[in-house]
Amino acid sequence: MILPRGVRQTDFDSAIARWREIVGEEWVFTSDADVALYRDAYSPLWNEPEEKVASAAVAPDSAEQVQAIVAVANEFRVPLYPISTGRNLGYGGAAPVLSGSVVLDLKRMNRILEVDERNSYALVEPGVSYFDLYRHIQDSGLKLWIDCPDPGWGSVIGNALDHGVGYTMNPYRDHFDAHCGLEVVTGAGDLVRTGMGALPGSTTWQHFKYGYGPYVDGMFSQSNLGVVTKMGIWLMPEPEAYIDGTVEVFRHDDVIPLVDHMNYVMNTGLQNAGTNLQSPIRFAAAQDPDLRAALASGDAADIARLDAFAGERDVPFYSNIFKFYGPEEVVRAQWESTKRRLSSIPGARFRDGAFYRFPLTEAEKAGVRDPQDLGIPTLATFSIGARSNFAPATRGHVGFSPVIPMTGEAVIESQRVFQQVLQEFGTDTALLVFPQSFHPRTFVILCMFYVMPDVQMNQAVRRTFRRLVEVAAEHGWGEYRTHTEFMDDCAAAYAFNDNALLRLHETIKDAVDPNGVIAAGRYGIWPRHLRDA
Amino acid sequence: MILPRGVRQTDFDSAIARWREIVGEEWVFTSDADVALYRDAYSPLWNEPEEKVASAAVAPDSAEQVQAIVAVANEFRVPLYPISTGRNLGYGGAAPVLSGSVVLDLKRMNRILEVDERNSYALVEPGVSYFDLYRHIQDSGLKLWIDCPDPGWGSVIGNALDHGVGYTMNPYRDHFDAHCGLEVVTGAGDLVRTGMGALPGSTTWQHFKYGYGPYVDGMFSQSNLGVVTKMGIWLMPEPEAYIDGTVEVFRHDDVIPLVDHMNYVMNTGLQNAGTNLQSPIRFAAAQDPDLRAALASGDAADIARLDAFAGERDVPFYSNIFKFYGPEEVVRAQWESTKRRLSSIPGARFRDGAFYRFPLTEAEKAGVRDPQDLGIPTLATFSIGARSNFAPATRGHVGFSPVIPMTGEAVIESQRVFQQVLQEFGTDTALLVFPQSFHPRTFVILCMFYVMPDVQMNQAVRRTFRRLVEVAAEHGWGEYRTHTEFMDDCAAAYAFNDNALLRLHETIKDAVDPNGVIAAGRYGIWPRHLRDA
Repeated sequence: MILPRGVRQTDFDSAIARWREIVGEEWVFTSDADVALYRDAYSPLWNEPEEKVASAAVAPDSAEQVQAIVAVANEFRVPLYPISTGRNLGYGGAAPVLSGSVVLDLKRMNRILEVDERNSYALVEPGVSYFDLYRHIQDSGLKLWIDCPDPGWGSVIGNALDHGVGYTMNPYRDHFDAHCGLEVVTGAGDLVRTGMGALPGSTTWQHFKYGYGPYVDGMFSQSNLGVVTKMGIWLMPEPEAYIDGTVEVFRHDDVIPLVDHMNYVMNTGLQNAGTNLQSPIRFAAAQDPDLRAALASGDAADIARLDAFAGERDVPFYSNIFKFYGPEEVVRAQWESTKRRLSSIPGARFRDGAFYRFPLTEAEKAGVRDPQDLGIPTLATFSIGARSNFAPATRGHVGFSPVIPMTGEAVIESQRVFQQVLQEFGTDTALLVFPQSFHPRTFVILCMFYVMPDVQMNQAVRRTFRRLVEVAAEHGWGEYRTHTEFMDDCAAAYAFNDNALLRLHETIKDAVDPNGVIAAGRYGIWPRHLRDA
Repeated sequence: MILPRGVRQTDFDSAIARWREIVGEEWVFTSDADVALYRDAYSPLWNEPEEKVASAAVAPDSAEQVQAIVAVANEFRVPLYPISTGRNLGYGGAAPVLSGSVVLDLKRMNRILEVDERNSYALVEPGVSYFDLYRHIQDSGLKLWIDCPDPGWGSVIGNALDHGVGYTMNPYRDHFDAHCGLEVVTGAGDLVRTGMGALPGSTTWQHFKYGYGPYVDGMFSQSNLGVVTKMGIWLMPEPEAYIDGTVEVFRHDDVIPLVDHMNYVMNTGLQNAGTNLQSPIRFAAAQDPDLRAALASGDAADIARLDAFAGERDVPFYSNIFKFYGPEEVVRAQWESTKRRLSSIPGARFRDGAFYRFPLTEAEKAGVRDPQDLGIPTLATFSIGARSNFAPATRGHVGFSPVIPMTGEAVIESQRVFQQVLQEFGTDTALLVFPQSFHPRTFVILCMFYVMPDVQMNQAVRRTFRRLVEVAAEHGWGEYRTHTEFMDDCAAAYAFNDNALLRLHETIKDAVDPNGVIAAGRYGIWPRHLRDA
């Protein structure tokens, strides 16, 4: 067992003993076998001495127990690392940033405290997964949708706090944006309700985000100031129908007007859902080294050659799926007007896609290609990697995921820049996913690496990842979220005015968690006593 | 001149001298005539000894000057009170919360630094008003809309930071929600850029809100931790068309399904704009004391009598305007499907309203009834009060504005509860505005009082306002925003766990603004040295 840095064995033992009194013997885990379950199964440091591991775990059943646990942590200065369901794979899983931290496992706090159909929200605890919430809604016969990320086993709270994203409409698909109201045990052990929850007997805690005075909720996201014990989440009323359709364009430069139109339909509310931009010519070129080189070069002659190839073979250079939710007459009109708008791109071609009326029958549900688009949680998308050639089931992944502006020019440039870095690395174990639209006005680029169980490969992944952070920053692009191993690197890139924002985070950290007992190092924020180390 | 509490004359004079060096003689105001211009023209304490007044004002031209001014304030412990355009009338205007504070007047910082049509945003300084931004966009021929509150002379930054609201679509009509990225001089004098602005050379500062790590922007809204010197604001691309329509229902209880349908259309994105709920029967009953009493009583016999009156006279009990923005075929389909949905309320009647295609001609613009609905700033709505019987032009107003759930039951109950309090006060100088929809899932109730120049009347306004705060809290309703005079009262109502949220605000205040030089007392947050006084 690794003791947390600077903590004496006697203090650690005293804390463990006190925690046993608080939660009961059976909910404090100290055996190697038990603690190993909190290892990050996707760690890019797997089996290396630097792998980040916990010293123990404690699993409370209530906010009151969390308060008591945090008080003991403060008394003995033992660092805690809160997890919800511990399924944040690709971003560190259940393992702490600081080795030796005690995992504060909130899985037992899995109560769905309220689901309101008329104002369409839920109030949940951290252990509630997307599957849990979905099943509860289905079993209760409520006409509400959730919005879920790729893996349905994740925590509704954990995912929102890590700025996770999904696939239905705004504001639901930005999971932090869809939250409304928090209950938090601060690092100092105080119990705070934010927003309208600060008003005793409030009737709008899950309705109105801001409350009165400074709106502090964001401080508890991607953060380590406290432990969130309850959260409100806005849900979408079941729409009447869904339609999607694909636009295909055939020239390299068509991505510029295509993305401009995507901006327009998204920012006018015509199409509020995520989009699915692809470049089919890349798949066609995958077999042909010449074409692949042409795609990477970006010079005019190569582009002309690629345009000719796309035209002759009738392979779209780019395509995008537009998705619409609402009454049938509305979604059909939305798709028609989108086609009209996009037809200003010469040669643009349109294909009608799926159409559904809700509620779906169980048979219809089984046939849906992308269940998350319809608010149905699944593990299928998440495990695509594991089933592909890249990744036997024994491999995990980490993703480098910078944010770029939603413009065709940025798509072209970022593809070229990141492809180049990955080329040096060797792209047989890396995958450059085409820009994803999870937020308005930006794309997220995903450079996916497969990791484990090869130490040498993992070292190369880490080197390349760190190079990508630098290269991205040189172009004005930064990560939206990252694996625990790279949190300091990414934080360092946000360097304006001698890292003024990070220094502000540290100032607040020292004030709200003065002994630095919560999630030391998370998102690059270290408590004072560990900062210079 | 009133010196700030605890500040020595020599320190004050030294600060003034240093500020003159920083901004130039002509931009430091100390004469009584100049300082009087910063009085709150709508103060409910007008001409009373307790009226909150400034001691001086200083007007910088850049963020660097703001930093230098804040450094001097820290050196001599002189409290500053930042204002943008100083037009937050009804909420304190340009006058400080703490008498004797020096107004930090940001009006000169009125640069529109960037407007981007493709990703639809602007980057502005605090002195930029809605009129300024609108004119700039019109003059540049950009196809972008702003979203503006009632008075167009207000600051885009100031309004967003005070959680101001407007009338077009989500997310634009919630002005803080529409902001993206801040530059802030903290109370300690540091210059921080939030979100992606923390990444040097960032290309997505005005595109992506969260940046990396804790999302701190909300801390600087309704707050006093720093001085915002730049802000990004999302703009709406000009839609193709607009349509509105009115639904009328005729029985007291119809408000329950009516509001449920409003929730549905809003939360599915079918109708993302603000709505306009009215109760026409109230106007009809205004002349008839019996009917007025029946409206207030809420008992079954009275309700039956009112339902009969509404039916016989063909006066709707409630009505609501639905507004749609988008391509013509889409907005027509949206209105048709809204009518279909609402026709499940027996006797519901529909009236088609305005239809516009954009851009409007100047003649069309002149004929628009509610210009803010189309992103056109005006002062007309704001001055309605001044032109009515209630309010000669010499009067101002303050509004009590609690948030209630978006349900018909809450509409009925809140009307009854607040009408009762206002009845005691005497409703000839107070106005209970019907619930406004500025945010999803909640209504804002507006109890409007006319104030000035009668000291006795103002005292009654203050008593009644404080009573309303208490009565609202008893029902679980709290203020979303308030006049400086009532900031402590409203903060006190947010009392969960011994005012844990306010204590958290104070903890952060002490850390980020350790000498408490910024806007002492704003939203009930006092610096340590003034907290117990």
